[in-house]
Amino acid sequence: MFRTEICDILGIRYPIILGGMLWIGKADLVAAVSDAGGLGLLGAGGMPIEEIVEELKKVKKKTDKPFGVNIPLVRPDSDEMIQAALDNGASVIATSSGSPKKFTRMIQDQGGKVIHVVANVTFAKKSEDAGVDIIAAEGYEAGGHNGHDEITTMALIPQVSSAVKIPVIAAGGIADGRGFVAALALGAKGVQMGTRFLITHEASAHDNYKAAVINLPDNGTCITGRSTVGPTRAVKNKLTGMIVEAEHKGAKPEELFEMIGEGRSAKACVEGDCEEGSLYCGQIGGHIKELKSAGEVIVEMISEAGSIVKSLQNLV
Amino acid sequence: MFRTEICDILGIRYPIILGGMLWIGKADLVAAVSDAGGLGLLGAGGMPIEEIVEELKKVKKKTDKPFGVNIPLVRPDSDEMIQAALDNGASVIATSSGSPKKFTRMIQDQGGKVIHVVANVTFAKKSEDAGVDIIAAEGYEAGGHNGHDEITTMALIPQVSSAVKIPVIAAGGIADGRGFVAALALGAKGVQMGTRFLITHEASAHDNYKAAVINLPDNGTCITGRSTVGPTRAVKNKLTGMIVEAEHKGAKPEELFEMIGEGRSAKACVEGDCEEGSLYCGQIGGHIKELKSAGEVIVEMISEAGSIVKSLQNLV
Repeated sequence: MFRTEICDILGIRYPIILGGMLWIGKADLVAAVSDAGGLGLLGAGGMPIEEIVEELKKVKKKTDKPFGVNIPLVRPDSDEMIQAALDNGASVIATSSGSPKKFTRMIQDQGGKVIHVVANVTFAKKSEDAGVDIIAAEGYEAGGHNGHDEITTMALIPQVSSAVKIPVIAAGGIADGRGFVAALALGAKGVQMGTRFLITHEASAHDNYKAAVINLPDNGTCITGRSTVGPTRAVKNKLTGMIVEAEHKGAKPEELFEMIGEGRSAKACVEGDCEEGSLYCGQIGGHIKELKSAGEVIVEMISEAGSIVKSLQNLV
Repeated sequence: MFRTEICDILGIRYPIILGGMLWIGKADLVAAVSDAGGLGLLGAGGMPIEEIVEELKKVKKKTDKPFGVNIPLVRPDSDEMIQAALDNGASVIATSSGSPKKFTRMIQDQGGKVIHVVANVTFAKKSEDAGVDIIAAEGYEAGGHNGHDEITTMALIPQVSSAVKIPVIAAGGIADGRGFVAALALGAKGVQMGTRFLITHEASAHDNYKAAVINLPDNGTCITGRSTVGPTRAVKNKLTGMIVEAEHKGAKPEELFEMIGEGRSAKACVEGDCEEGSLYCGQIGGHIKELKSAGEVIVEMISEAGSIVKSLQNLV
């Protein structure tokens, strides 16, 4: 069911990827997604190298399926992170926030596969030129760090998949079988999901965080940092209100950085502070009403997608 | 092919609706879309009643298929507009920017059908309660006037179609068979398109306007008026640059209104001034590369959609 070239490239059963999520996508979730036939990506963004190694060792104990690591290339030690990931069993490196030229060859020379995350056509073409294996094209509705161009998944996927020859994964706005089939129809060969996997038993986020997303209305997220510290989508709360107000008053990036300070994600994920913490979340959070296991999410998505394709068949 | 309940309700062959576009969607385009099996909607927003009557008379001469009129309820004479539309052969009234309670009964009592345009779940439910026949749910990627909640089509359609029982049409980000199938997969029973029909021979926009959209990159549109005069999506040009700069400097709504002045749409649509005129356009404009007839757009969409469903079938 739904076997695409993504499955062949990554050696997985279903073309469903866990988006890298700092503090949330740790060993339990990575292993659960991979074990259910998708591809788990460790959200290694803020982890010291030793923690990456430790988490990957845990993953290997839990599953013998392929898994990967998400590495934001803004980290000055990203080369060491990548090497540590490859040395500890990761067969896929998902790179973001930086040039795909820098490490693609190094990863592939060691047998690893490269997924590069982009938010527009220009960077998709650059990634293809750099030789990456797969492009993850992420729309404006996605949670967390976001592109400046604000191109939505619906508009982005047809344009990116028409512009490149390598397979494209759709990210942003996908949480069930409907989004999965829609992504395939738009030209993607698979999907990447963050928010849906955040609302699973295996995700390391605090229960308060998960509850906030389960109770989210359709308009419960917002973008902050648009013209200052970089666009980020999160659940609307006291913190986003403070940032919006400061931006409205013309705060400079350095003032905002100081005001926001460090550790806002940990505040949400670890302490469960849903007002002063940063609750990264995609718009599709409004559609997610049930906490499940990651395996259930995948099985139900595939089954729902199968039914949708059958009902589309009845229309032709 | 692709016959849904939208077709039964509106008496049309394909569930493809022409979004109402001021200065662009006049008799030629309305008749062409209806004649090809979709539903043409006259973009009556800025028209005096006499012009509406005149345009509808022209439509009737060109086709015997059903057609409708788009009426923004902010117009103080919207009741007269609606009556004129119904008296002159329109069988569908698409209402927007106002309460669906006000005119739904009046339209239905005269045998007309009501489509109400919304951009979030709350207004979708209110529209259903008001008794409208169909909801058009429009995402953030759409051109022209836009919702404050910024919910994208990918996130909006599953949420709206889960929240109401009446059929939902997806609008925003759709320009070909891919978008059409994606919309159906997400839970919509049809699509509404503006930008794709703008790039047709029958659209009344100036050739310069059409050329600007054909040459548009993926990130060629922007939203202005977000926190001032109301969000609107248009092609980035000198005018949007001026507005963005003024907003950045903290201009008040009345200052912006004065700066923008009247007639910016006419400047683009009639005079072909692509720098000082307002070129409403959706993000999917970046994906539209060819001027076609409206009939070709519909025939090719349906044919492409058929092929996509077949290829999805091969995956299950």
